[in-house]
Amino acid sequence: MAITYRDAGVDIDLGESLVERIKPLAQRTRIPEVVSDIGGFAGLCSLPADIDDPLLVSGTDGVGTKLKVAFATGRHTTIGQDLVAMCVNDIITCGARPLFFLDYFASGRLNIAVGEQVVSGIADGCVLAECALLGGETAELPGMYAEGEYDLAGFAVGVVSRKAILGPDRVRVGDQLLGIASSGLHSNGYSLARRVFEQELKLAWDEPVGTLALSLGEVLLTPTRIYTRAVRTLKTAIGDRLHAMAHITGGGVPGNLPRVLPTGTKARVHMPPMPELFRVIQQGGPVELTEMRRTFNLGLGLVIVLQPSAVTAAREALVSAGESVFQLGEVLSEDPDREPYVEFD
Amino acid sequence: MAITYRDAGVDIDLGESLVERIKPLAQRTRIPEVVSDIGGFAGLCSLPADIDDPLLVSGTDGVGTKLKVAFATGRHTTIGQDLVAMCVNDIITCGARPLFFLDYFASGRLNIAVGEQVVSGIADGCVLAECALLGGETAELPGMYAEGEYDLAGFAVGVVSRKAILGPDRVRVGDQLLGIASSGLHSNGYSLARRVFEQELKLAWDEPVGTLALSLGEVLLTPTRIYTRAVRTLKTAIGDRLHAMAHITGGGVPGNLPRVLPTGTKARVHMPPMPELFRVIQQGGPVELTEMRRTFNLGLGLVIVLQPSAVTAAREALVSAGESVFQLGEVLSEDPDREPYVEFD
Repeated sequence: MAITYRDAGVDIDLGESLVERIKPLAQRTRIPEVVSDIGGFAGLCSLPADIDDPLLVSGTDGVGTKLKVAFATGRHTTIGQDLVAMCVNDIITCGARPLFFLDYFASGRLNIAVGEQVVSGIADGCVLAECALLGGETAELPGMYAEGEYDLAGFAVGVVSRKAILGPDRVRVGDQLLGIASSGLHSNGYSLARRVFEQELKLAWDEPVGTLALSLGEVLLTPTRIYTRAVRTLKTAIGDRLHAMAHITGGGVPGNLPRVLPTGTKARVHMPPMPELFRVIQQGGPVELTEMRRTFNLGLGLVIVLQPSAVTAAREALVSAGESVFQLGEVLSEDPDREPYVEFD
Repeated sequence: MAITYRDAGVDIDLGESLVERIKPLAQRTRIPEVVSDIGGFAGLCSLPADIDDPLLVSGTDGVGTKLKVAFATGRHTTIGQDLVAMCVNDIITCGARPLFFLDYFASGRLNIAVGEQVVSGIADGCVLAECALLGGETAELPGMYAEGEYDLAGFAVGVVSRKAILGPDRVRVGDQLLGIASSGLHSNGYSLARRVFEQELKLAWDEPVGTLALSLGEVLLTPTRIYTRAVRTLKTAIGDRLHAMAHITGGGVPGNLPRVLPTGTKARVHMPPMPELFRVIQQGGPVELTEMRRTFNLGLGLVIVLQPSAVTAAREALVSAGESVFQLGEVLSEDPDREPYVEFD
């Protein structure tokens, strides 16, 4: 009896039918720059005409073991937003405008319904991120993933004018630090959070977390906030008085904020009150404060470094864009040879 | 006793030390357009100055269960070239010049030595592909991957002048088809190939395959050929007489060649003799010829569609670039409403 590729666990026709379901989802995210349709060998996209001396800005990321929460609860419609957020929030920190996104979706045996839910969340994320879903890969890898599990990787490209790049070169001693609220864990620290909730606190997915009116499943699946619109509004409001931004991911504030500070400076940061979710994890572990700070965002999704004169306008712009804003502290001088770091007060 | 992120299976310091090892590898791939160093929030790259009305071209792919061969043989230094090849060969088909590449490397528990070998292969691939390794993500996902296993996803971006895009719009009835030899399975059909070699033929990794002077492990790990240089040479030789190219991946010639043919045409293809590796799989399954054709590249990595007047110059250029070339057939007219397809003779 002859054997087929399908016998070996790979169904090309199934993959093709997922591509057909993805096309209308991608269509929703189309921006004027997109030239190609989904399904070709490659995605094509032009550059915005109004960006002088354009540089491409690119980043890739996954969503870590937040995936395990999607598997356990059977809810796959928002993890795609997390994927877009993790990539796009990285590229906007240097001042880029997002252009397009591609995803890699891998499982042992393709489940079309789950695949469509995941990609639908990716498309939702692209709409929020103001970029196009330009392409993707659906990989069927028999024996690599447990039944019902999958992995996701994302890839975002944006564009920035060379003279508008944000970062350490623009930051000055005396610059002020504002924090924009996160929506929860975002997509970092899930292995530790799950360890605490599952093994220490032994909470079920439908049980409430601390004093929150949300179940554990809801809390842990809250989509990562996407800051494209907030940052666009902020730039319009304060222009080049915006000096740098740090996306608070793995490593927390002490791991990420120094990446946008110049040598010879430090950030003095007063953290806002720890949100209930993080307080429950801290006590439930217990997890030491230092470990909390270098693992989780602790309520801050993005830290903004700006000229002192721009603080009021920045706060107003961010609030008008629907964000919660915290005054965090400022940039201070340090020994000229010392690597930048964060000092908590 | 307080618990830490490391207790939960994620070692941020280990990830950081892999990043340090990756930096010199990425440095090797640097092209003049690269603006940033590895390790920032995002990678920055300018556009080549000599491309008029540039369009970005982007693709993503993985290497499928070729990974399983790397795991089984413990050889991780070439799978990275496969990853780059799968992405870059896609984007060059529309005429793009590769610019940069990013990788996603995910495992359950990070093994730095393996990670470095994998990324070193990615850097080798980027050098062959003439693009920069601009960034990447190393993800540690406890409980998602079996011990010693990992997944890889790649993302490539290139650039093409809008007026130089290749594809179906340029293809005419009477155009000739040339094939460029593949180096073996490339990165497609591994689930079926492994099924045949492991379960039907029960070959060990160090046993020879058919009449080949190579072991099964060597044959199955042969890196996917990267066609950047060949295609660049071809374009210089025949200019706009090059009309389209199809990267032969999953779906084989009948699944990929029609993607670059206009409606109302078909390709008549005379396949070259089946290379020994594929012959062994076909007989070992057995696998029917139709299934072989729609699963494997059967010796053809890239199919070139070109103006008849350019055939001799194209052959010479490709041979001078070190490729083996096959005359495959031509583009014929069909019913105007019929979707393009391949007819084998």
